[in-house]
Amino acid sequence: MKKIAVFTSGGDSPGMNACIRAVVRTGIYHEIDVYGIMYGYDGMIHGNIRKMQSHSVSNILQRGGTILKSARSEAFRTKEGRKKAYEELSKHGIEGLVAIGGDGTFTGAKIFFEEFGLPTVGCPGTIDNDIFGTDYTIGFDTAVNTALEAIDKIRDTAAAHDRIFFIEVMGRDSGYIAIECGIGGGAELVMVPETTTTIDEVVKSLKGLRKSKTSSIVIVAEGDEEGGAAEIMDKVKSRFKGEDKEFKVTTLGHIQRGGSPTAKDRILGSRSGMAAVEGLLKGESNCMAGIINDQVIYSPFDACINKSKPLKDEYLRLQELLSI
Amino acid sequence: MKKIAVFTSGGDSPGMNACIRAVVRTGIYHEIDVYGIMYGYDGMIHGNIRKMQSHSVSNILQRGGTILKSARSEAFRTKEGRKKAYEELSKHGIEGLVAIGGDGTFTGAKIFFEEFGLPTVGCPGTIDNDIFGTDYTIGFDTAVNTALEAIDKIRDTAAAHDRIFFIEVMGRDSGYIAIECGIGGGAELVMVPETTTTIDEVVKSLKGLRKSKTSSIVIVAEGDEEGGAAEIMDKVKSRFKGEDKEFKVTTLGHIQRGGSPTAKDRILGSRSGMAAVEGLLKGESNCMAGIINDQVIYSPFDACINKSKPLKDEYLRLQELLSI
Amino acid sequence: MKKIAVFTSGGDSPGMNACIRAVVRTGIYHEIDVYGIMYGYDGMIHGNIRKMQSHSVSNILQRGGTILKSARSEAFRTKEGRKKAYEELSKHGIEGLVAIGGDGTFTGAKIFFEEFGLPTVGCPGTIDNDIFGTDYTIGFDTAVNTALEAIDKIRDTAAAHDRIFFIEVMGRDSGYIAIECGIGGGAELVMVPETTTTIDEVVKSLKGLRKSKTSSIVIVAEGDEEGGAAEIMDKVKSRFKGEDKEFKVTTLGHIQRGGSPTAKDRILGSRSGMAAVEGLLKGESNCMAGIINDQVIYSPFDACINKSKPLKDEYLRLQELLSI
Amino acid sequence: MKKIAVFTSGGDSPGMNACIRAVVRTGIYHEIDVYGIMYGYDGMIHGNIRKMQSHSVSNILQRGGTILKSARSEAFRTKEGRKKAYEELSKHGIEGLVAIGGDGTFTGAKIFFEEFGLPTVGCPGTIDNDIFGTDYTIGFDTAVNTALEAIDKIRDTAAAHDRIFFIEVMGRDSGYIAIECGIGGGAELVMVPETTTTIDEVVKSLKGLRKSKTSSIVIVAEGDEEGGAAEIMDKVKSRFKGEDKEFKVTTLGHIQRGGSPTAKDRILGSRSGMAAVEGLLKGESNCMAGIINDQVIYSPFDACINKSKPLKDEYLRLQELLSI
Repeated sequence: MKKIAVFTSGGDSPGMNACIRAVVRTGIYHEIDVYGIMYGYDGMIHGNIRKMQSHSVSNILQRGGTILKSARSEAFRTKEGRKKAYEELSKHGIEGLVAIGGDGTFTGAKIFFEEFGLPTVGCPGTIDNDIFGTDYTIGFDTAVNTALEAIDKIRDTAAAHDRIFFIEVMGRDSGYIAIECGIGGGAELVMVPETTTTIDEVVKSLKGLRKSKTSSIVIVAEGDEEGGAAEIMDKVKSRFKGEDKEFKVTTLGHIQRGGSPTAKDRILGSRSGMAAVEGLLKGESNCMAGIINDQVIYSPFDACINKSKPLKDEYLRLQELLSI
Repeated sequence: MKKIAVFTSGGDSPGMNACIRAVVRTGIYHEIDVYGIMYGYDGMIHGNIRKMQSHSVSNILQRGGTILKSARSEAFRTKEGRKKAYEELSKHGIEGLVAIGGDGTFTGAKIFFEEFGLPTVGCPGTIDNDIFGTDYTIGFDTAVNTALEAIDKIRDTAAAHDRIFFIEVMGRDSGYIAIECGIGGGAELVMVPETTTTIDEVVKSLKGLRKSKTSSIVIVAEGDEEGGAAEIMDKVKSRFKGEDKEFKVTTLGHIQRGGSPTAKDRILGSRSGMAAVEGLLKGESNCMAGIINDQVIYSPFDACINKSKPLKDEYLRLQELLSI
Repeated sequence: MKKIAVFTSGGDSPGMNACIRAVVRTGIYHEIDVYGIMYGYDGMIHGNIRKMQSHSVSNILQRGGTILKSARSEAFRTKEGRKKAYEELSKHGIEGLVAIGGDGTFTGAKIFFEEFGLPTVGCPGTIDNDIFGTDYTIGFDTAVNTALEAIDKIRDTAAAHDRIFFIEVMGRDSGYIAIECGIGGGAELVMVPETTTTIDEVVKSLKGLRKSKTSSIVIVAEGDEEGGAAEIMDKVKSRFKGEDKEFKVTTLGHIQRGGSPTAKDRILGSRSGMAAVEGLLKGESNCMAGIINDQVIYSPFDACINKSKPLKDEYLRLQELLSI
Repeated sequence: MKKIAVFTSGGDSPGMNACIRAVVRTGIYHEIDVYGIMYGYDGMIHGNIRKMQSHSVSNILQRGGTILKSARSEAFRTKEGRKKAYEELSKHGIEGLVAIGGDGTFTGAKIFFEEFGLPTVGCPGTIDNDIFGTDYTIGFDTAVNTALEAIDKIRDTAAAHDRIFFIEVMGRDSGYIAIECGIGGGAELVMVPETTTTIDEVVKSLKGLRKSKTSSIVIVAEGDEEGGAAEIMDKVKSRFKGEDKEFKVTTLGHIQRGGSPTAKDRILGSRSGMAAVEGLLKGESNCMAGIINDQVIYSPFDACINKSKPLKDEYLRLQELLSI
């Protein structure tokens, strides 16, 4: 293998740049040419491909976002689109791919591999930490810390006014960000898609806390089955009628995707990027380079996409127990 | 004057604790007893008043929120309520008041002074910077820096996906936070209540920038005449139909109220608190201790409440010129 | 077991408060009285012991330092001192101990247990991550992120002036902070006590980088065999005579010990604190509650003190490979 | 005037990039070509000059350091060097200069102007805030906030161990950073070059505080007449012999020069850069564009270099009074 290409796809996450840097430099170290594909699958189709040098990735380790950019690609969902992509890669003599992204990225990579047989290794880049085959995903630790800083600030103002705050964090199908924010932020309640918490239970909990706590924080994962934070707040509020209690809602939104990555995400991105390239060289393909119990493990895309990673029961218990 | 009391009222702002600390320690320095009133006017009415020592305000300088808490008080809007408040203060022998807050706080303080003649000096504590009689209000600098950090993060993800982001910052009647965030965040457009920017103009600007910029950020003050950021985005988006452009919205919300105050806010809070106490001792009353051109100036509550502080034209021009 | 006590000892680390909070609340949850011992072993000897309530640990989760304070204790190194400590604990009816700290703390705890048989479980609180029996210690992640933020800032000014910076981070016997900062900060070189890097090698590396890099950063663990960062810089500088290259040194020092803990350290502190109490209840003693491969593991104090935790070879390789 | 050039010189400061961006974009707005000179006066002599476009300064507003880099230039201190510099500028047809830097930069600019008559306007870029003709310099606010964050962290560990910390901040001839950190950080004592504080006084103060404070922080400006923080600590420590008190020292160093600029510094850099270009166009020269009482003021280089800016007495008093 003498020429490989790297791209980012799906929602960006802090640490993707560290990963790109590691891919490029590991390639150079092994005397391989590394190409960068701009805008993910869309750029692949349009031949938006450029050769990377060591200095192309200087001074990006500490930056959020992705210098290779990301985009949706309807065309790549079609056979014609993928064929065009393969032709563009062939033109450049690309013999291997590193795909940085999440579920959707790997689904595309798997189909592409099955159709054209181009060796591909993935790196888990998404803030949601919802990918099987790795303990943590690149960007998750930064997202949690960013959310936590926001929650710390909100607690200041919640405490000053004795308010109940509902704070919505990211996580469409996964409560990982929510539960870590709940433990780390000392939240009174956490609502995640993995467990059922009814409005009745929320109301009961909050009413129970009235004696011991003047203000409360409820963390809501965006994918919770009772709705978003605003909707849940409205339902709860209606059950406190006649009581002199203020309710507020904040949706943290896209600030969770950006920012300079934490040490953990810089290291995870770097390890994963190096492992992807060295995996390709050793013949790994159609799989993701994750870190499980501090070891690099290559898991088939198939497992990464289809198996789900459960929330840790210990974390749910920890959050509940410590919120007394 | 041998006994004074201090309270915070209205929305909390970072630096209020620095101000409380300065009031307490300046009082002690001048051998005056200082009392803290909890929950603003409401606590005044309920006699929620406690004597403060030097160590009561230890280790609070760097904290957001207010250790004296804040609350709304419907009762204080009535003559009976205010009479009750005066009686409670009299019971404790309070001879002077320091009121930390914004417009509403000073309106209450003015009426109370006119009715009962208790000497009162205000300190400008609000993140909005919408108070006449001071160049900056306590908490404004922190709010701007908090919003700016969020905007920096959002720019990472906006750039990664070539998106147009509408970001709503606080400021109901004032575009101060928005304009400073606009200049500091390198925003492409800023929408403030003080100037009229039509949807037509926004659309025209954004379309004009398409050649030179792949992503754009529009900062919207919550009080803008065209609506909040979400509403404005919807209007603008409908005018980009058929174009492959993604629009996103984020409302920064209450994170702007909390957090450890910046150096500027700690110093402003400290100066203002010291000036309030020393003003009371020198016979100042029914006025606010602001800082204008780096000098302590006592302005009548009447002026602070009724005069408006215009946005600087230079800032509007600076933002526009630099966004090319 | 109906009464336990908790204390912190040795150098403080961010997350110790999260751990104290977890100990107190887990105790309360299991209907046990929890006492706080102030100033570690010294306070034990002097009977500086107080009962803790749930609200005693409110609002401390996000704070650096330790509310129970820490101190050296010469007296506890004597048999008489320890006897006095045991008598004070007996007076309060203490039946179990949670010791939060590092090597020295556990050595004391082990001797104390062997002499008086009071069940004791430790929690690994130290920024150095040099304790066997846990993947990470409480405070390590925060220290690394604090150092990394400082390194990012220094890189700005290093790059502006094309300078070579030597940055000393904490770690007397351990290069953990240094190596994570080296990978995360994109350092050109890392000098750790675990490996030998001669001045010759440093000079050769830096001279080799002259073509590709205008500025360089060398991270030095305080315990490196070639001396501190200042000493190493002097040695290296003398080998660049006649060349127009500026060298600078910064010792990050005690900022690495303080600050609001990261999510990881809040969670690790919380888990470890809960595990210590529940371990005591289940009969664990003379051991530390660490987290290995994401599982709570109780390792004998003996092992924690005497076995050393090697640096990961993968990390050394990663840093070297990516610095090209 | 159709062609101007901009450069940075002396120590870098956060906000210099905001200033460069404003110079370039204001020039383009007024249909002027703007050239960037790399490495200050040194690059001027070597003709290291390149044309800047609007996108040359994209995405730099939020970055520390200076994209134009900085360097010392012995050659520029000679007549021959300056002649060479003038010839290089003439080759490019440069008709005006914007010099971003401090004292040394403006001294060079003044001599250069007097010899060759090339119109030059300066922008005050230095973290020390020691320049007459402007209330604040670009980078000062960021440096203070960076130092303050470090001081907050150190206070955590100082409090945990009841220690006395001596913290050295930057400021060779000026106590501005020190005094703002002293007020903002709640320091017990501040030692600045502008006032004389003897070791006797320091010892007396610290001994006096023993009853009320268990830990103390002394901020030392690097240019204090009693020496650096380490030297002062040693002197003080020797006077506490026999007392069980721990002393520690931290020198914050170069972290104060880097980092993402605060809102204030981004705005100040932007205003100053715009004012420099528009000043040149209106015929201003041999002067600096400062901001005094929120107005742009052009002060002759001569005054900026030779007049000193005294510390505010109010600040010294505020710090002292609030440290009780």
